[in-house]
Amino acid sequence: MQEIIRSKDNQKIKTLRKLKQKKFRVKTGQFLIEGQHLIDEALSCHQTIETVIIAENYTGKTTYPSQTITVSDAVMETLSSLETPPGIMAVIQYVPKESKNERVLMLENIQDPGNMGTLIRSAAAFSFDTIYVSENSVDVFSDKVLRSTQGALFHVNVETANLLDMVKSFEGRVYVTALQDATSIDSVKTNEDSVAVVLGNEGSGVSDDLLSFVENRLKIDMAPNIESLNVAIAGSIIMHHFKRE
Amino acid sequence: MQEIIRSKDNQKIKTLRKLKQKKFRVKTGQFLIEGQHLIDEALSCHQTIETVIIAENYTGKTTYPSQTITVSDAVMETLSSLETPPGIMAVIQYVPKESKNERVLMLENIQDPGNMGTLIRSAAAFSFDTIYVSENSVDVFSDKVLRSTQGALFHVNVETANLLDMVKSFEGRVYVTALQDATSIDSVKTNEDSVAVVLGNEGSGVSDDLLSFVENRLKIDMAPNIESLNVAIAGSIIMHHFKRE
Repeated sequence: MQEIIRSKDNQKIKTLRKLKQKKFRVKTGQFLIEGQHLIDEALSCHQTIETVIIAENYTGKTTYPSQTITVSDAVMETLSSLETPPGIMAVIQYVPKESKNERVLMLENIQDPGNMGTLIRSAAAFSFDTIYVSENSVDVFSDKVLRSTQGALFHVNVETANLLDMVKSFEGRVYVTALQDATSIDSVKTNEDSVAVVLGNEGSGVSDDLLSFVENRLKIDMAPNIESLNVAIAGSIIMHHFKRE
Repeated sequence: MQEIIRSKDNQKIKTLRKLKQKKFRVKTGQFLIEGQHLIDEALSCHQTIETVIIAENYTGKTTYPSQTITVSDAVMETLSSLETPPGIMAVIQYVPKESKNERVLMLENIQDPGNMGTLIRSAAAFSFDTIYVSENSVDVFSDKVLRSTQGALFHVNVETANLLDMVKSFEGRVYVTALQDATSIDSVKTNEDSVAVVLGNEGSGVSDDLLSFVENRLKIDMAPNIESLNVAIAGSIIMHHFKRE
């Protein structure tokens, strides 16, 4: 029988709790996930699980091929980001999935965690396997983003990158969504081997700096009087359009 | 010069504050919106603005063709749902837009405010002008949903309804997203005059009861090993597919 950690000030718990802060995630390359589903996804995608953290009253699966620790419900509450902790968490040492950088999503300054997570989820669904994220975006490894990805993060390669460099060096067509001087996606061919899609901030779109290096501007036809779509919707419709036939 | 309301206990303010609760929104048919953009959208869509509430230090437009009241920043904070109140709010008496009920979105038990708002925004963009929402869904007139719609709510007709009745009485094809026994949207024709799309809860999908009355099951092709898309993404891709040519 494993000892149950009951002190919030336990050194191991204090170290784990630091992973709720971005700077420690960046420093260690580790992050926390919550719930059976995300852990199962991480395992099936051959992620390195450093530690599984299990609440003493957790009734689900408790044996894993990695270190497990058991904690009191009170300790679990200090680690969880959820109002009702699911009772199981894990520390992941992120291993980006190998990718050919042929089908790439570039995200500049996306701020909403739901949009970021949903875009990663859609990218995985439509075989975009590399996602470059600008430094000023919401942290991909924060709890809200991770929940929104529904585990899709483990199916792709996510990297923080200088998008200007990535656009310049990409071998293939780069597309950006734009409201002006743009071609309807319905008239753009869909079976390109190499394709990159650039999406920008929820309020201000793609920066002018980046925009000036992208030749291909796409728009999604909309009803009159409607200004724009949510960025995760626009991006997903475009990735779906470019899905592999 | 208008008197500035500085007391949180002012009777008018207390009445307005009640609109932050769903039961008072249902009772009165009124709801609160925040920020210039939503107010402009409401005006341009001929919504009835009961009252415009302006913070004493607000520097934007302050003249409106409806009753305005000026309040202290402290009072505004008690009305706002935002950490940084934009300084202007309004009370809307909702007037659903007239619609032909030809292009209909039916939402069963959608719980996430972002998903609900984004679906309404996409519906308006792709000319789905009637949205039936089941009673157990997140309240369409809550602040988070309203923000996510970006004002698109005023371009459509949103009604709470018994979806089973709506499916049975709809004159046209009704489609539902399903993972099994479903046809790829790529092989479904897109120029139907009357079309209804049914979407279900984020976790459990469309209920079996409702599902049994919908003949046409659609799926969106995805990469292997990916289970599903976010419901707002799936719904928007389908509505985009059925956009008017």
